[in-house]
Amino acid sequence: MLLNNHIITIPQFQSFTSIKNENTIVVIDENVYNIYQKKIKKYSTIVIKAGEKHKNQTTVNSILKQLISLKANRATTLVGIGGGVVTDITGYVASVYMRGINFGFVPTTLLAMVDASIGGKNGVNLGVYKNMIGTFNQPEFIIQDVSFLKTLPNKEWQNGFAEIIKHASICNNKMFNELQNQTLKKWQLNTKRLEALIEHNINIKCNIVANDVYEKGDRKLLNFGHTLGHALENEYKLSHGQAISIGMVFACKLSEQILGFNKTKLIKDLLLKYGLPINYEFNKIKVFKILTNDKKREVDKINFILLEDIGVSKIVAIKLEDIKNALQVF
Amino acid sequence: MLLNNHIITIPQFQSFTSIKNENTIVVIDENVYNIYQKKIKKYSTIVIKAGEKHKNQTTVNSILKQLISLKANRATTLVGIGGGVVTDITGYVASVYMRGINFGFVPTTLLAMVDASIGGKNGVNLGVYKNMIGTFNQPEFIIQDVSFLKTLPNKEWQNGFAEIIKHASICNNKMFNELQNQTLKKWQLNTKRLEALIEHNINIKCNIVANDVYEKGDRKLLNFGHTLGHALENEYKLSHGQAISIGMVFACKLSEQILGFNKTKLIKDLLLKYGLPINYEFNKIKVFKILTNDKKREVDKINFILLEDIGVSKIVAIKLEDIKNALQVF
Repeated sequence: MLLNNHIITIPQFQSFTSIKNENTIVVIDENVYNIYQKKIKKYSTIVIKAGEKHKNQTTVNSILKQLISLKANRATTLVGIGGGVVTDITGYVASVYMRGINFGFVPTTLLAMVDASIGGKNGVNLGVYKNMIGTFNQPEFIIQDVSFLKTLPNKEWQNGFAEIIKHASICNNKMFNELQNQTLKKWQLNTKRLEALIEHNINIKCNIVANDVYEKGDRKLLNFGHTLGHALENEYKLSHGQAISIGMVFACKLSEQILGFNKTKLIKDLLLKYGLPINYEFNKIKVFKILTNDKKREVDKINFILLEDIGVSKIVAIKLEDIKNALQVF
Repeated sequence: MLLNNHIITIPQFQSFTSIKNENTIVVIDENVYNIYQKKIKKYSTIVIKAGEKHKNQTTVNSILKQLISLKANRATTLVGIGGGVVTDITGYVASVYMRGINFGFVPTTLLAMVDASIGGKNGVNLGVYKNMIGTFNQPEFIIQDVSFLKTLPNKEWQNGFAEIIKHASICNNKMFNELQNQTLKKWQLNTKRLEALIEHNINIKCNIVANDVYEKGDRKLLNFGHTLGHALENEYKLSHGQAISIGMVFACKLSEQILGFNKTKLIKDLLLKYGLPINYEFNKIKVFKILTNDKKREVDKINFILLEDIGVSKIVAIKLEDIKNALQVF
């Protein structure tokens, strides 16, 4: 509900089938639907195409029209079951359908569990511009059903760990060490430890967001790696995790120049350990042009999140000219 | 700003040219632009097509793309100068661009001054469904510049008076009497008296909305005449004022049946006096079908606003079956 938009929703660990089916409409992508069809069948369902490239107004329009056909009204709860694309779209559609109806999330990917489903940011892309249209609006509930992770492809695990490494880098040196001492395989094999890690990351994100719902201050720290990352992600065939991994390395380089940060190698090593890329060939002029339209831009500067140390981050406004130069030598 | 969405913005009477041009982008329709081009030229401007049929997602997309081209960012204020279509679209675009930027309104029609610009409801139509997509979000400012009324066509005056008669009917018997004793011509010739009437109507609307921003209770009273009115407006070539005028007569008929209301004739006479229609030939099956998708529907009933007396209104949930029957004999 719109009235809730200051209160951060804390996820609950339980089976998604606990959600009542009365007055509920599920939004789900074709991939998740194909795997979990039987469990979903008790709900009215809107199936959308999978993938970031369908996170756009066309998909929104299609859902809105189906809501009308299904006679959804202000008593309807819309439930997004899926990754960040599905939860972002579901939250947005619910925020604008009939000027706002209730909604809830069931994240099915590690990335969505530790990051995308939490914090009340929702929206869709406009052309190459990521999340250019959206609202701040908190879901009524978030259900963490880790049984979904059993069918999660490896590249999706990497996406999740990119955000987990981000959390560690900006504010938790201890978790950074823990990640160094583990491997992706070990996390996958130890459900108990994995659940604890997920919960830890949820707490990190909830704490930051609760103090700054509208991203006027410290919530911006969560954008570490995302400024360049978003520009790369929509222009090239990179996953979100891959894109922000490269973005984090770029932010480390800026941190070296501006704050004398000297642990770029540790971050690169950790990213590589979890299968994430640390460099990429891209058209620097084109990407710089996209950057200048970023939501984080303020006239002739862009706010970047830089590191002073592992676990210690700050917001620094950097001149467009300096970013252009840093991109040239990246 | 989204943070303001509980605080109703009280309009200020002054010239719109007092708005600073720095970080401001004006949204205006071609008709108003053509008349006031010279006065507008100090602002960055997005010109949209005029009329209710352009209050849709296509126009929204066009504005969003132009905002990107104009490099609008989170420091930008979007100002809608125009009638209800322009203010509704402007408020909606500003609510979703970059997850919400500041916005303000300069209503240029009587209808927008006394009604559409006030209360924080914004949005666009989806096919024949009025305001199916939107948000509740209050503008930063509303500037009432009554000099715009000098160029207002007569049918626009009638639209404004339809809402003024609505306000009188639902909650102000004294204003109803005053309207009976005047004519449209007299109001047009007496600016002082007209300004007082506008201010009175703004106060009526602000008071109702301030107590119920999200339309859970008494704000619904403002929908008097609007349930059937909206269904007619998008299906037939009727102005908003004409459509709700017919809708008010229908609501009076329901009020007779259900509450024993016996002053339908007084309302009809007043509507006729201000040039508004009191009946219309329409496809009752088609219109009933649209009604069943109304936002005000609750499973098998629709909330209608009925009158007990002139100035005394209440919300009554009416069975779809009863509405169908009442439409047949209307």
